[in-house]
Amino acid sequence: MTPSSFLTDRSTSVRVAITTGDPAGIGPELVARLLTEIASDSSQPVVVYTTAAELDRAFDQAGSGADRAVVDGAEHITIVETGADFADMPVGVASERGGRWALNNLELALAAHERDEVDAIVFAPLNKSSLHQAGMHENDELRWFEKRLGVTGVVSELNAISGLWTSRVTSHVSHRDAPAQITADRVRGATGLLNAYLVGSGVPKPRIAVCALNPHGGEGGKFGSEEIDEIAPGIALARASGIDAVGPFPADTLFLRARDGDFDGVVTMYHDQGQIAMKMIGFDGGVTVEGGIGIAVCTPAHGTAFDRVGMGTATVTSTRNAYLLARSLAATSTALTA
Amino acid sequence: MTPSSFLTDRSTSVRVAITTGDPAGIGPELVARLLTEIASDSSQPVVVYTTAAELDRAFDQAGSGADRAVVDGAEHITIVETGADFADMPVGVASERGGRWALNNLELALAAHERDEVDAIVFAPLNKSSLHQAGMHENDELRWFEKRLGVTGVVSELNAISGLWTSRVTSHVSHRDAPAQITADRVRGATGLLNAYLVGSGVPKPRIAVCALNPHGGEGGKFGSEEIDEIAPGIALARASGIDAVGPFPADTLFLRARDGDFDGVVTMYHDQGQIAMKMIGFDGGVTVEGGIGIAVCTPAHGTAFDRVGMGTATVTSTRNAYLLARSLAATSTALTA
Repeated sequence: MTPSSFLTDRSTSVRVAITTGDPAGIGPELVARLLTEIASDSSQPVVVYTTAAELDRAFDQAGSGADRAVVDGAEHITIVETGADFADMPVGVASERGGRWALNNLELALAAHERDEVDAIVFAPLNKSSLHQAGMHENDELRWFEKRLGVTGVVSELNAISGLWTSRVTSHVSHRDAPAQITADRVRGATGLLNAYLVGSGVPKPRIAVCALNPHGGEGGKFGSEEIDEIAPGIALARASGIDAVGPFPADTLFLRARDGDFDGVVTMYHDQGQIAMKMIGFDGGVTVEGGIGIAVCTPAHGTAFDRVGMGTATVTSTRNAYLLARSLAATSTALTA
Repeated sequence: MTPSSFLTDRSTSVRVAITTGDPAGIGPELVARLLTEIASDSSQPVVVYTTAAELDRAFDQAGSGADRAVVDGAEHITIVETGADFADMPVGVASERGGRWALNNLELALAAHERDEVDAIVFAPLNKSSLHQAGMHENDELRWFEKRLGVTGVVSELNAISGLWTSRVTSHVSHRDAPAQITADRVRGATGLLNAYLVGSGVPKPRIAVCALNPHGGEGGKFGSEEIDEIAPGIALARASGIDAVGPFPADTLFLRARDGDFDGVVTMYHDQGQIAMKMIGFDGGVTVEGGIGIAVCTPAHGTAFDRVGMGTATVTSTRNAYLLARSLAATSTALTA
């Protein structure tokens, strides 16, 4: 298997379900390229939920980066024909049909997991507008998985780039509503999840730092007291359970230290706190993990790139890393819940 | 004069007041080194508020990076002996004495400006703890200047690194309290200030982008409506006055474009939004400008570095850039108020 920037395929006999995400985006062509790699370089079992018509288009879009014959000849790759109608499926735009396609395939993967036929799920990029047109009511995919799976513990999107992970205490909520959601228990949960997933990715004893919420970390309560009232107690709870977590630290300087290798993971308090820093560090190869839902679910950190479908410019690195990470997480005995 | 990374000395006959900031930090040694450069390479008038005893210690701390004899021999450098007691002034720690020293020297510089004896002010790093011990009640220096000068318009810290400036609609307030302070008029003001100061620094037609507040820019009101209710109207007001301002854009991807040169300035909604990005882009040479107070006041973007005083490791780049920028701003006819 092509080496990843931050993962090696340490897993054995893990079965990964793969879905193409929004069929109008670059997801299908990325899956075609990933399957070509898996067919050539691995003997690990994967199951793909799609249709022959979608695969035809996906390999067309992927061009020379994918080889249908190699994939068709690989016994460890199972193509599950969903039977859904792909005729005239839109390309390069959000649509209700695209959203429904993506959600239906995710449902099939989850159902296969419930029947113990697969151990982990990788999905190619989704589009929020398509999903909402298709009737998804939740603010994001993680909330959809949480509800679908009846998760009662803390969940958190995790973002992973080479050598650095983040988790979030709050995510797709307004700036105004975020502070009320920052509780000691949620800080403990986001720290615990980050630790568990880092261990699952192959970091035996993760060094974790926790962000403050307010500028300068609140300066001892002068500009906000969440650091004193919730974040520090949450860190103390995480430390009491044996996690090497420190903080809270002002976010602007903390990310310099994290980038320079002082920490394996950073717990962030809100969406942009981590995303501004992670995007500045570098986008290539980033993976988003749906953390806390009890099953390894990974997706590339980038979007559907509707304007670049079929151009041969989409890089498969993030999708490959998502696949390798899902394998690694499913192969560990670490509980993937808070 | 040593070339700056982003400024050239375009000004003529501008008189700059210089203060050493917190006497316990690296400010005095940085001023000693800056004065040595000014003595050797420039004929522009500067006025320094200090004492002989502080200068003795500052040149000692600066070591081979500064030359007292050269400074003493420069006719364009005026040392104003304040007569204050420097005996046993603490080194490397915050103190009420240090804070009082710093505030008194700033007062002398402002008084000289009121008597039309100086045109701009540069101060070396201050320490907030020292200032508060010395009785400063405001949350930061900008609020102190604002009150001291009776400013009624919008004020904003501006941060400048090579090729990229930011202004802030809110600054040293809690995450929770920031949204209520984001009004269309303040967005207009922070955009107008950024534009005026960029022009003053030598960018004839600044390209300005304005950040959203909420994750994904609120997704059309789903996660917060400040983008719709306040930020977009504020941008429209700025555009109506002839400013090339666009947005609001989600902050995480906007800073990638700004770093890559798409914009000269970014208007941020809260402290860490800009500071996370600017510190990731690079600290070296950064300048903080007290924007909107009607007089050019600049300071290096770094702190007092109490742990590195007298070690010869403090770089003068930011202090030099602050000095050059203050000159440039004072030399233009641009109004430095919103």
